[in-house]
Amino acid sequence: MNEKRSEINELGEFGLIDRIAGQVSLQHPSSVKGIGDDAAVIDAGNDFVLVSTDLLAEGVHFDLAFTPLQHLGHKAVSVNVSDIAAMHGRAEQVVVSLALSNRFSVEAVDALYEGIRAACAQYKVDLVGGDTTASRSGLVISITVVGRVAKDKVVYRSGAKPNDIICVTGDLGAAYTGLQILEREKEVYLSNPDMQPGLEKYEYLVGRQLRPIARTDIVFELEELGIKPTSMIDVSDGLASELFHLGKNSNVGTRIFEDKIPIDQSTFETTALEFKIDPITCALNGGEDYELLFTISQDDFEKIKNHADIHMIGYVHEKPNEHSMVTKQGNEVPLRAQGWNHFKS
Amino acid sequence: MNEKRSEINELGEFGLIDRIAGQVSLQHPSSVKGIGDDAAVIDAGNDFVLVSTDLLAEGVHFDLAFTPLQHLGHKAVSVNVSDIAAMHGRAEQVVVSLALSNRFSVEAVDALYEGIRAACAQYKVDLVGGDTTASRSGLVISITVVGRVAKDKVVYRSGAKPNDIICVTGDLGAAYTGLQILEREKEVYLSNPDMQPGLEKYEYLVGRQLRPIARTDIVFELEELGIKPTSMIDVSDGLASELFHLGKNSNVGTRIFEDKIPIDQSTFETTALEFKIDPITCALNGGEDYELLFTISQDDFEKIKNHADIHMIGYVHEKPNEHSMVTKQGNEVPLRAQGWNHFKS
Repeated sequence: MNEKRSEINELGEFGLIDRIAGQVSLQHPSSVKGIGDDAAVIDAGNDFVLVSTDLLAEGVHFDLAFTPLQHLGHKAVSVNVSDIAAMHGRAEQVVVSLALSNRFSVEAVDALYEGIRAACAQYKVDLVGGDTTASRSGLVISITVVGRVAKDKVVYRSGAKPNDIICVTGDLGAAYTGLQILEREKEVYLSNPDMQPGLEKYEYLVGRQLRPIARTDIVFELEELGIKPTSMIDVSDGLASELFHLGKNSNVGTRIFEDKIPIDQSTFETTALEFKIDPITCALNGGEDYELLFTISQDDFEKIKNHADIHMIGYVHEKPNEHSMVTKQGNEVPLRAQGWNHFKS
Repeated sequence: MNEKRSEINELGEFGLIDRIAGQVSLQHPSSVKGIGDDAAVIDAGNDFVLVSTDLLAEGVHFDLAFTPLQHLGHKAVSVNVSDIAAMHGRAEQVVVSLALSNRFSVEAVDALYEGIRAACAQYKVDLVGGDTTASRSGLVISITVVGRVAKDKVVYRSGAKPNDIICVTGDLGAAYTGLQILEREKEVYLSNPDMQPGLEKYEYLVGRQLRPIARTDIVFELEELGIKPTSMIDVSDGLASELFHLGKNSNVGTRIFEDKIPIDQSTFETTALEFKIDPITCALNGGEDYELLFTISQDDFEKIKNHADIHMIGYVHEKPNEHSMVTKQGNEVPLRAQGWNHFKS
């Protein structure tokens, strides 16, 4: 037999998801929103229940050479909680599945769960179940989070309208920069094991990579400010990729301004001076920042303009899938949705 | 440093789950039931929402040498839906996460999802999300199922009372026997690749292993009969192991009768004549049957006694953790909770 074989890396992760989603239709009256947003939306009567899942695989999403298991457990919960925040909801429960090779001891599992429990306490989320099994190689963590949102408060990727203001929280590019530092120090250590890694001066950047924080605080603050975003997504694959997602789902385009993109001073200095890469590239394509990217109506501008941790970086326009950045020099350059293709070898 | 290292295989899967559960407490008012039943129970207002998750890893839970990907996808959904049935609930949504090495083509992913979609159609469940990522080796499938049950209808493992009748659906031991056949034929094939496996006469047994069916029908039928079980669990690790779970959670013991345990004729013949193993051992410890094991009040005996697919195999007594079987010869032998320890090397 000569069966056709197509490689997954030619499709990429998003292509694969689109292919899967294209073959699925929803039958159940309680299934309000399926594949294609940060979380699925299920009608639970009074409220919507939100469900999201993320799988982290050793050697793909994390390198145990420089990732303490406590941090890994914490991060695995955070990235899931972040998906619920991106729907404007509050996470309430998680289930955690682990596949572990016999390389891992009971103490290692304890360390991982210490981080998981710390994150659960931080986000006020209960660990209510899971599955634990052997694996033939390495560690896989699969977490599903369950959240809740009032029916009139849910925010999708699809509600952005022309002239809406594009906002992003915190700062971008630090998590990617932290990863570059960790990988550099690993190389140094491997070539000279007596050398201790000098990570003190990079504490912020490394912390952003190893222990990101889901912006559940922003969901509360937006509510206090009386703002419901028109669309929202969390920044897991990089600002550019997320703008493309919002644009695709809302059938609009975006225009952002380089000088408005929030980049921490340490990210700026480390990328530009040490790694000789453009800090803006890290912010646009670095990913793993787990900040919230959202759009608001211009009517809400006054309510948000003085918020220290929410940055207005551009606006929405009506041209679908046209995304550009105005540089500091005043040139307009098209954005590319780079994201990450884990399937690249 | 001389850190303590304890091996996971000394604890086993259940020991590890107990260890994790012992360190967790529930804070959220909506978390009704956490770790320790077939599914977590979440208060969603009018109903309970049920959440369960199962992770299947290549080389541990399945062998792609004899597992068609369509069947694997179908089975991965079925084992999750079965957990919801075991709570007396109905599955409504699933999220599916995959980790795949580049050994897998797009066509392979299509085949897997074909099985997932077939199972979703069969059980009237919607595929509403997931995560797809690369892995450094092999295939991992993690599915989380969301179900629903009226608050007064939920059935836990913990409600069995002395004198309750123990019931099991379908027949037991066939899935394990099917696995023995598949492994035997794999050996034959590996030693002589020109030899085609002769599986026709084992169709039922192999089907039970490769494509088990969650007993959602029983949940409907119990409702029609006006029966609410006092406790319930699905048979994933073997009858004996599940009896220990019910006993532990309900603080009772059980006594079953060998001649009442339902074993299909083909299971009986194949195990006894070909594999020279006791069919009862397969039924008690084989696992993966995904039948429902439940207890009912004696008051419900009349309603159920003529049901062709529900078998009354024994009764509950008040002595905690004492589980025995009365053999065909009239001897009483203690049961052992064998289950499966995937962590054994």
